[in-house]
Amino acid sequence: MRTLKSKDRSRLIKAAMGQLPCDLTVSNVKYLNMFTGEIYPAEVDVLDGFVVRVREEGVQAPAASKETYDGKGAYLIPGFIDAHMHVESTMMIPENVSRGIVPWGTTTICTDPHEIGNVMGVEGVRFMLENAKKSALRQYVLAPSCVPAVPGRESTGAAFTAKEVGTILDMDDVVGVAEVMDYVGVVTDNERMHSIVEEGLKRDLLIQAHAPFVTGDMLNAYRIGGPLSDHESTCAAEVREKLRAGMYVDLRASSIIDGLAFLVDGCRDHYWKDHVAICTDDVHASDLLTVGHINKVVKKTIAAGIDPRDAIKMATYNAAREYGFDDLGALAPGYIADMQLVRELDGGKPEAVFIEGKLVAENGCYLAGDTLTEAPCLPNTVTIPQLNSTGDFVMRVPEGYTGSTIMVNVMTVSPASPILRMVVPTELPVKDGAVDISGDPSLTFVCCANRYGTGSKTIAVYRDFGLLKGAFASTVSHDSHNLTIVYRDPAEALLAAKTLQSVGGGILVAEGEKETHVALPAAGLMSYKPCAGVAEEINALQKVIDEVSGGRLTVLASAILALPVLPGVVITDMGLVDGTNQSFVPVFAL
Amino acid sequence: MRTLKSKDRSRLIKAAMGQLPCDLTVSNVKYLNMFTGEIYPAEVDVLDGFVVRVREEGVQAPAASKETYDGKGAYLIPGFIDAHMHVESTMMIPENVSRGIVPWGTTTICTDPHEIGNVMGVEGVRFMLENAKKSALRQYVLAPSCVPAVPGRESTGAAFTAKEVGTILDMDDVVGVAEVMDYVGVVTDNERMHSIVEEGLKRDLLIQAHAPFVTGDMLNAYRIGGPLSDHESTCAAEVREKLRAGMYVDLRASSIIDGLAFLVDGCRDHYWKDHVAICTDDVHASDLLTVGHINKVVKKTIAAGIDPRDAIKMATYNAAREYGFDDLGALAPGYIADMQLVRELDGGKPEAVFIEGKLVAENGCYLAGDTLTEAPCLPNTVTIPQLNSTGDFVMRVPEGYTGSTIMVNVMTVSPASPILRMVVPTELPVKDGAVDISGDPSLTFVCCANRYGTGSKTIAVYRDFGLLKGAFASTVSHDSHNLTIVYRDPAEALLAAKTLQSVGGGILVAEGEKETHVALPAAGLMSYKPCAGVAEEINALQKVIDEVSGGRLTVLASAILALPVLPGVVITDMGLVDGTNQSFVPVFAL
Repeated sequence: MRTLKSKDRSRLIKAAMGQLPCDLTVSNVKYLNMFTGEIYPAEVDVLDGFVVRVREEGVQAPAASKETYDGKGAYLIPGFIDAHMHVESTMMIPENVSRGIVPWGTTTICTDPHEIGNVMGVEGVRFMLENAKKSALRQYVLAPSCVPAVPGRESTGAAFTAKEVGTILDMDDVVGVAEVMDYVGVVTDNERMHSIVEEGLKRDLLIQAHAPFVTGDMLNAYRIGGPLSDHESTCAAEVREKLRAGMYVDLRASSIIDGLAFLVDGCRDHYWKDHVAICTDDVHASDLLTVGHINKVVKKTIAAGIDPRDAIKMATYNAAREYGFDDLGALAPGYIADMQLVRELDGGKPEAVFIEGKLVAENGCYLAGDTLTEAPCLPNTVTIPQLNSTGDFVMRVPEGYTGSTIMVNVMTVSPASPILRMVVPTELPVKDGAVDISGDPSLTFVCCANRYGTGSKTIAVYRDFGLLKGAFASTVSHDSHNLTIVYRDPAEALLAAKTLQSVGGGILVAEGEKETHVALPAAGLMSYKPCAGVAEEINALQKVIDEVSGGRLTVLASAILALPVLPGVVITDMGLVDGTNQSFVPVFAL
Repeated sequence: MRTLKSKDRSRLIKAAMGQLPCDLTVSNVKYLNMFTGEIYPAEVDVLDGFVVRVREEGVQAPAASKETYDGKGAYLIPGFIDAHMHVESTMMIPENVSRGIVPWGTTTICTDPHEIGNVMGVEGVRFMLENAKKSALRQYVLAPSCVPAVPGRESTGAAFTAKEVGTILDMDDVVGVAEVMDYVGVVTDNERMHSIVEEGLKRDLLIQAHAPFVTGDMLNAYRIGGPLSDHESTCAAEVREKLRAGMYVDLRASSIIDGLAFLVDGCRDHYWKDHVAICTDDVHASDLLTVGHINKVVKKTIAAGIDPRDAIKMATYNAAREYGFDDLGALAPGYIADMQLVRELDGGKPEAVFIEGKLVAENGCYLAGDTLTEAPCLPNTVTIPQLNSTGDFVMRVPEGYTGSTIMVNVMTVSPASPILRMVVPTELPVKDGAVDISGDPSLTFVCCANRYGTGSKTIAVYRDFGLLKGAFASTVSHDSHNLTIVYRDPAEALLAAKTLQSVGGGILVAEGEKETHVALPAAGLMSYKPCAGVAEEINALQKVIDEVSGGRLTVLASAILALPVLPGVVITDMGLVDGTNQSFVPVFAL
């Protein structure tokens, strides 16, 4: 029942009765009715950003509208809703994502500012909300639920308890509690997660799930604990189990993960599909330039055998129902006039997009203005006093250790999954009191350094990272976003650290005295540049990365090296952590 | 997102994880999944009245439940939800309707105490809520929106402004604003209806519609004004138009009106039917004894060509969504364990019914106790000082009128509809200063007398009411429930009035010095007797009515004679009223 956009009912009633002219008529369209599934010729009249009426063929409006837009026989469908995405993944600030997203027909995104939350806390979330208001795109926010993801195993820029989550939930345009990654906290009913979930439940807001591989008793307990909508299914069986348990499933195809065709197997044959929505989760600027947004996922969903009407419903009405929005996801009297004209019901680029009845994109061109009026002045969030000299990058053996070799827990990819790591105890030479990897070209050092001023850091050895030469550094390092540097030569590592500190964060490759970087001054996560600029810089950096890695690494190569919710070994600023049981693993195997 | 029943999440999580035994397992059932439409063998575990898990065949519970109920291979489906009904129409008080309704598989009713609201105001509504708590049946209440239905054209026992509606909406178990009959008030945006609707909208509650024959611009304006769910469609085209406009349609089959087979034509072929629910509106005690409740409407819906799964979804999940209930209408972890075992998916009487995991009916037997522990002591609401002698029932001609005949606006059934009336100016004899109908056996007098102490009354002439002899009187007279008496002999009318006054209201037939009545001491609308007792008394009275009317009249023959929202001429205590334009019509055509 929740109505998000306040309306002047009296004006709209007058318009419906013909006593006020509407602002806009979209004429000559094939209208897809989201309540009945019917498609019929119609004209839609809009006032104050709301649909006043949908007139079937031959029905005259009681008063002519001020303007008419000729739909030229295209289908008129609601604007798409992204049920879950992180703006930070685009590496653009909110006001700039609008230009990248809206021309593809998405008019609402439900975002989790989890990354900036970890870096800047409540003020970071507030920045996202405030900055979003400068754009045409409807940007709702969910309160990050797991900041930090694993308390006591990494240090972040902020820590959220129920109090911070409650503060965020009371802000305008906040519509739920974001992905509850700490499923262990929920199923063991720990106080932190219980109280955070409670903040959302007591406000009747959506609790978003994040439950890959969670099944059986654990899934039941997790669902009862609050989380309702999940986008992390890894296979069809998970989709089916979650739907059967009453959860919403947000089918996801991101720039990173795309198993959509398999996920659809988990719902294709269901008689009812009310609980299936669609999301992008993480999408990169270059994909927004060339591939698409929700429309791309709709296209894949249709290709996987879902009726186009159902695919569109998932991306509109079902997503709205998931959140309890009662004025989005359909076009009918009283609904917000977020709509798009599409030539076919196939996920193609729309011919026109309207937000609140205003034409905001036409044939791929964004018409809602160049939104970046001035560069925001967020503070530099990269504070790394512990990285001042090349010596700070040397991996010293423990005090008093005198052997000529030492057993090191070397990080390496797990055979279980390319995104998981394990440690392999390995005997390595000691030289001048430090570990010497110069004899094995497959080894690199990896340093994770707190960038919020605590001075903590961890240095470990990593086998087969994929870097042939130079150093690779990034402040985009989920979820704490500490500075992660992969290197052999401490001088290159120092250059990387100094440069990223000076620009406020980013992603960088250093080779000798040369460096190439993408500056991400907004919380070390986002650029202030628009979509094309960000994509161009990333593409340029990727070329350099291709050179130093023989084409093996991407700009996000180190992005999940420090993510302790992964069930494998990661490196945080506090040490090596085994995500399976959230225990520390010593750097040296002594 | 609204969760109505508070739960101890910690206990439920523990049970889900196997750390606490469940109270109940319902085993050996074919489970209809309301999210996917699948049917598969399962067992359902319940704790504290909530579903903890649904185990598919072969899945062991992590801990055994305290009790097991063998479903013997029946289908397990959610308890039915009646999306709209008036408890007063059963002529039972809330605690007694449970016994009549629950054995048919209905576990939740969403009720509009509009009748008692008109008689007793906010205190009447409070009585319904309090009394309902004594029963097993989940009884939610909507705040009556139109008390009185037509201000200034009838006098009632109470008048609700936004203040009274707000007071009711803040009471426990109140879930919406009830049927907004004053559609003219909404589409003209008058202050009274605007502010009453606003009370519901600002609390994110359902605004229930009541819009027979409302179409086109008027329907759009009405929808924008707030009302969402309508049960008053009169034909398939209305059903289709309302669904297309984004309204919910509650398919209705009541004890009075049943056009269900035709209404289904308005949605049968729709690809999606999410916005279709089911209701009974008005159902009589005798029907509850013999015919059924929501299950009967489900049966008719299936007979009209709806897939049984869809019909059940309409009566469960869709109704819950209409109201925004997120813990009713399905059986999955965290949902309230309101459920029924049915041999077939056909609307038949269930083999067992559970409310909050407690067995409350089995094979038609109610097991939740004889709920009427003591007769409530509601005050006598029949105060009629204006009816003291036979002279008070004489229809006098206007002061100073000296003619031997007089033109009278005689009420008679309209050719447009058997429930509508018109007036026909007719010349009648005058005798002793009063209208004389003794020469025409097709004529009767009809008197509508305020029963709230104002002393007002109207006497008119009615042609072809259907009464062959005696007087017919009732305090069930929508919506003001003033005393309505149809008679020829003032002595019989006086006997009727005196008797109904002494018993606190009811329905009565007087013939000579003999009278037969059903006493309805609860607000002049309801008996304190249980279902069988009420049905028996009504049947006995009906036999007498059959005698005096030659089988033509029912106990509710006068129930809508005084209903000024009808588009025809009615009689209120203030005069004859033309509902079409809500103007007075003179009794004499002078």
